[in-house]
Amino acid sequence: MTIVTIIGAGMMGSGVSWPLSDQGHEVRLVGTHLDTHIIESIKKDGTHPKHKRQVAKNVKPYFYTEIPQALEGADIIVCGVSSFGVEWFIEQVKPYLKPEVPVLSITKGLVADTNGDLHIIPDYMNSLLPENLKDKISLNAVAGPCIAQELAARRQSCVYFCGRDANTLKDLRKVFATDYYHISVTTDFIGAEAGVAMKNAYAICINLAVGEYQQKGADGIAFMYNPQAALFAQSMREMRLLVELLGGKLDGLIELSGSGDLYVTVFGGRNAKLGQLLGKGLSYEQARNELANETLEGVEILTRVGTALPKLEERGLAKASDFPLLMHLLSVIRDGESVNIPWDKFFPDFEL
Amino acid sequence: MTIVTIIGAGMMGSGVSWPLSDQGHEVRLVGTHLDTHIIESIKKDGTHPKHKRQVAKNVKPYFYTEIPQALEGADIIVCGVSSFGVEWFIEQVKPYLKPEVPVLSITKGLVADTNGDLHIIPDYMNSLLPENLKDKISLNAVAGPCIAQELAARRQSCVYFCGRDANTLKDLRKVFATDYYHISVTTDFIGAEAGVAMKNAYAICINLAVGEYQQKGADGIAFMYNPQAALFAQSMREMRLLVELLGGKLDGLIELSGSGDLYVTVFGGRNAKLGQLLGKGLSYEQARNELANETLEGVEILTRVGTALPKLEERGLAKASDFPLLMHLLSVIRDGESVNIPWDKFFPDFEL
Repeated sequence: MTIVTIIGAGMMGSGVSWPLSDQGHEVRLVGTHLDTHIIESIKKDGTHPKHKRQVAKNVKPYFYTEIPQALEGADIIVCGVSSFGVEWFIEQVKPYLKPEVPVLSITKGLVADTNGDLHIIPDYMNSLLPENLKDKISLNAVAGPCIAQELAARRQSCVYFCGRDANTLKDLRKVFATDYYHISVTTDFIGAEAGVAMKNAYAICINLAVGEYQQKGADGIAFMYNPQAALFAQSMREMRLLVELLGGKLDGLIELSGSGDLYVTVFGGRNAKLGQLLGKGLSYEQARNELANETLEGVEILTRVGTALPKLEERGLAKASDFPLLMHLLSVIRDGESVNIPWDKFFPDFEL
Repeated sequence: MTIVTIIGAGMMGSGVSWPLSDQGHEVRLVGTHLDTHIIESIKKDGTHPKHKRQVAKNVKPYFYTEIPQALEGADIIVCGVSSFGVEWFIEQVKPYLKPEVPVLSITKGLVADTNGDLHIIPDYMNSLLPENLKDKISLNAVAGPCIAQELAARRQSCVYFCGRDANTLKDLRKVFATDYYHISVTTDFIGAEAGVAMKNAYAICINLAVGEYQQKGADGIAFMYNPQAALFAQSMREMRLLVELLGGKLDGLIELSGSGDLYVTVFGGRNAKLGQLLGKGLSYEQARNELANETLEGVEILTRVGTALPKLEERGLAKASDFPLLMHLLSVIRDGESVNIPWDKFFPDFEL
């Protein structure tokens, strides 16, 4: 039996508590300062208010003020915060980090330097560590199509565990894998993480077509799958270029961390909803109002990468014009432009 | 103005008549022996009974008995028959083929030799030509996500025109492209065609999860996008391996002819329906009854490739075990096995 401490009790972090508890491990689920109501509910009657399910008996809830107790004796630390909480996470856990305790991050995103260089979240985490811990902590990540509610319902889900050491990844797999939670391991860390980082932004893009269809209607006969599919393919194109820009390989992009994770993100959630509202013709301001002014991961990654690309272009390392779909969404969300998908900029001729 | 003769008046062949007629070209739409009712309807009042729309005034209908007149002076010949009609198509048109008249094929599929070698349809067509025409006819194809009803509704659609000569492809593009029908060209003929060939089989596979969910229900909370997405990713994996087996490149697979065309094929149509019925627990026999005993492209390509793979394995050229999803569907459809998706055979560890 292994002790796994999950920092971040939202949908994403708590989702892995189901396979862990099914495997008989002790799970310590720690809420951030934004998760107080979640922890209170679990302490009261075991119910996770967002999952609307009971967590298993071997899942113990902790407030963030109880992090020392939650990390005492932990064999594995899971990072389940959003991309906005990464600094807070490192600040909270760093007094307790040890080389023999691997960190497994579910957090998705990229971090940009001021010169435009982009980094996957685990590498950014490493840069936040004190000198005595830098490059000494085993930082790993989960990538692949895994909606948390579905994992909690024990739906068949396939993901990658990625990192730099194959043996550590295989050991992590032994702890987490169940007959419904299937884990493959890869040390193409950058390839896997760069693919999944962009999915939220591109899910907004793909849903522009869904929203336009909702607005215009079926004209009695035809749907809007052609535009959606073209946007899916252009998203895959741009994600591929970004993976290559960061130095990753393409195997994961073709499979779970690219096409699979993009596919799963298209269908539900707030990024999809934002895309539909924009596709219907709402401005970003109006759409945000309808979404209770939440800041979305998709908008965050869009802004980070969309801002980095021109900087990389100045240094001769990338071309913003290679990312016409992303840059168009940026112009809509950041600059107030109307939605007007630049179809003619997609899919250059190739192999001529 | 160009004269374009389309052989095959079903959904697929007639679909391109809309961009062609919008461009002011003369379109001669020729029904096969299975399309008599379609041609009768168009001759009567211009209505295409399957599209439920009027064809444009410059679309002229012909019965297959009128092929000589329809091909007289044709500048381009479009092949819009199903994969079952390829031999008939060549037999009908070969007296009229000329090197300066390019053929553009919309037909999807692969053809297997008795030793298991797989060929894209245009190469198979070439093999059917008489000696004096072999390798002399310009054979090209359309690949990418383009549901015919949506093209007829002028939805934004992006496709590849593929072939061996870039200039011919660009000339074809000038004839067909409109402000809603976007065409990119590539001479990675095998890469583009091998990707799209498999989409119908994998759309059945992905819909197994949709059917299972329809059977089991939401349990109040969670959907089935994780399994669908994993099946999508495994389909992409297997399509990639097949493209490489046939000697194609991966750019199209990542974009329109792979991920895009697979995405568009998942959502509707009879292949999707078959997958759902099987996923619900019906046998293939029962499912075929519900689908009016139509033979489906997805089943055809599944059988052709699933039969070829063991032969290729005997020759040391492939491994059937690299295609666990396809081979499982084959066991369900050909051998009467129950649906039991082999999740543990998907996504081997990589880059270790």
